Amino acid sequence: MATVKMIEYEEASAEVQAVYDDIMATRGVDWINNFWKVVAVQPALLRRTWEGVKEVMAPGAIDAVTKEMIFVAVSVTNGCDYCINSHTAGARKKGMSDEMLAELMAVVGMANQTNALANGLQVELDEAFRAGGRS
Amino acid sequence: MATVKMIEYEEASAEVQAVYDDIMATRGVDWINNFWKVVAVQPALLRRTWEGVKEVMAPGAIDAVTKEMIFVAVSVTNGCDYCINSHTAGARKKGMSDEMLAELMAVVGMANQTNALANGLQVELDEAFRAGGRS
Amino acid sequence: MATVKMIEYEEASAEVQAVYDDIMATRGVDWINNFWKVVAVQPALLRRTWEGVKEVMAPGAIDAVTKEMIFVAVSVTNGCDYCINSHTAGARKKGMSDEMLAELMAVVGMANQTNALANGLQVELDEAFRAGGRS
Amino acid sequence: MATVKMIEYEEASAEVQAVYDDIMATRGVDWINNFWKVVAVQPALLRRTWEGVKEVMAPGAIDAVTKEMIFVAVSVTNGCDYCINSHTAGARKKGMSDEMLAELMAVVGMANQTNALANGLQVELDEAFRAGGRS
Amino acid sequence: MATVKMIEYEEASAEVQAVYDDIMATRGVDWINNFWKVVAVQPALLRRTWEGVKEVMAPGAIDAVTKEMIFVAVSVTNGCDYCINSHTAGARKKGMSDEMLAELMAVVGMANQTNALANGLQVELDEAFRAGGRS
Amino acid sequence: MATVKMIEYEEASAEVQAVYDDIMATRGVDWINNFWKVVAVQPALLRRTWEGVKEVMAPGAIDAVTKEMIFVAVSVTNGCDYCINSHTAGARKKGMSDEMLAELMAVVGMANQTNALANGLQVELDEAFRAGGRS
Repeated sequence: MATVKMIEYEEASAEVQAVYDDIMATRGVDWINNFWKVVAVQPALLRRTWEGVKEVMAPGAIDAVTKEMIFVAVSVTNGCDYCINSHTAGARKKGMSDEMLAELMAVVGMANQTNALANGLQVELDEAFRAGGRS
Repeated sequence: MATVKMIEYEEASAEVQAVYDDIMATRGVDWINNFWKVVAVQPALLRRTWEGVKEVMAPGAIDAVTKEMIFVAVSVTNGCDYCINSHTAGARKKGMSDEMLAELMAVVGMANQTNALANGLQVELDEAFRAGGRS
Repeated sequence: MATVKMIEYEEASAEVQAVYDDIMATRGVDWINNFWKVVAVQPALLRRTWEGVKEVMAPGAIDAVTKEMIFVAVSVTNGCDYCINSHTAGARKKGMSDEMLAELMAVVGMANQTNALANGLQVELDEAFRAGGRS
Repeated sequence: MATVKMIEYEEASAEVQAVYDDIMATRGVDWINNFWKVVAVQPALLRRTWEGVKEVMAPGAIDAVTKEMIFVAVSVTNGCDYCINSHTAGARKKGMSDEMLAELMAVVGMANQTNALANGLQVELDEAFRAGGRS
Repeated sequence: MATVKMIEYEEASAEVQAVYDDIMATRGVDWINNFWKVVAVQPALLRRTWEGVKEVMAPGAIDAVTKEMIFVAVSVTNGCDYCINSHTAGARKKGMSDEMLAELMAVVGMANQTNALANGLQVELDEAFRAGGRS
Repeated sequence: MATVKMIEYEEASAEVQAVYDDIMATRGVDWINNFWKVVAVQPALLRRTWEGVKEVMAPGAIDAVTKEMIFVAVSVTNGCDYCINSHTAGARKKGMSDEMLAELMAVVGMANQTNALANGLQVELDEAFRAGGRS
């Protein structure tokens, strides 16, 4: 159970309702998920977080479904159950197939393994990879 | 400096050289990066890790550059400097632009933030997201 | 369910009961929370952990409620549900308001985001910050 | 070395310079630290991150030095060297003494230890701590 | 609930059944635990992961119960509840006593604490420990 | 460079010197590594941490080299370079061979991978593994 009281639409201030309205309009849904009702404990936190998510997750140089899969990859690595479930659902809604989910997990698993090996054996960075290979 | 001696091609066993040859052929390069030279401390670990990476990172339902960006997302979340640099380089080689890198980082940053908020406030999973939204 | 049997007061050894008594006396409560009943699987682990917590969490140069909030910040970042709930409760008992909890979460979320950006883009340390700015 | 080119003030766009100016004015300094020069790879990311940091780190229900210490606690748990150094410096500038730093580290160390014990032994949440003790 | 449908033996392809058979034969059990039924969403992921686990967890220079305890140590640090429970069970089956479990947790807790202190205070590596003390 | 001044033996208080003496006597060495010189910023933190490490790392139901390897496993997962190097050196001194180090890394890598898969696909705990398989 959340450590703060969730703010339902009906009881929300005009400021919070405005954010809720924008969330529903942007996503084309008629309900607000628990994350936002909890973050609404502080209207400024709600507004800033939503504006950030809206801006960042919109398709740009990277498409929307890829952004959702990247979000899942981070959430898995952090072990955030809420985020894994909600963003897996989000990715599916935007077109991720079960085959893509399986490949995503395979990459995330492999990355976690090789991260451990590189850290564990203290591998030194190759000259060619310095600065992420920018020339 | 690595905690084990790196195995150079010239001094490697035939088993290790065969893996090195496959790495270079698959990637179209004529050198072996330090990660493999270190993992070669155990030939079985080298072979298994390389075969896994080769299989997992090949384009499939998800394309190759997206897979590299997912790899970077995990590596950033784990704070693995070697992996961040080597896979940022890998993603660039496969077509990631600076604009894509910036969007990748924006998503990874946002995911790490909202993971903390969801965990920190102990948000309960919405029914609609249960099982990652599979119907 | 805990992976070891919890030790209840009545069945505890004198050594364990002495620690339980000190926990209750120090905190002004008449019950022992599950964490200690589980850690009591090894009396030395119970004693050492309790003495450490007692010493570390006592007000000093940093006051008690701030220490609890720092504890929550770490627990959120590690995703430890038991610790998030128990130390959020502890912080509240020592005076943390809902407004403070919201600000705490905002800072923790922001820190997790900028940690990812600094790692992800491999930012080099500024001279002025070296050694944490000690002169 | 950063994986993207740092944007110096002189070469920055008007939009980026405006953020840089606000950072310097807000902090009362005449230079920009590397974090912002790197994040400026995407002006929207720079602006959004700075506005978030500025809003979140301003004193409110929690004072400024406590916020910096909470930031350090998260950065230590994530192992972000840049962030540990820069926010330790920031906390010092705002009044953290060496004694406070030592107590901060003691709490962060203890929290990381007990997080591991609670997770490792799968301690069940006590009724009294449910929902972080909110009544 | 898993984000993908679990593959039961009866409905599995011949390729998946062959892996399931090998898991049961290797472990001397007559059932398949949920992890494998979920990973079977992609037969190649199932096969590769099982072959890796089988190879890595077999006794070698390190005995089988120690390997299970190391697995638990990592799982605790990552906060993976499934893995903590399943590998604690695995370690017990291979001979870990409650006393050993308690000592394992004590070491894992202490390591997480001192990791935080070393990172948090940015301790510089001693010459004698460079390259993990290899001469 | 450490964020606090390291305390050298000559300038240390009698209380700190006593701990340093016990560290050197217990380990049979004639020098103090940087970790302790940094933690000595707070004598109580030094004493408590050393007494904990001494107690926890002494051979008991688990032998000393296994404890060092478990310590390395945690440090790798947390990405603590100081700890990886110092405890790899410690494990080697107590008898860990290069073959054992390679197997340790293989287990740590595999555990990090399967942790990600179990979290990522939200695998439900099997009845048989509940409470870590204790009967």
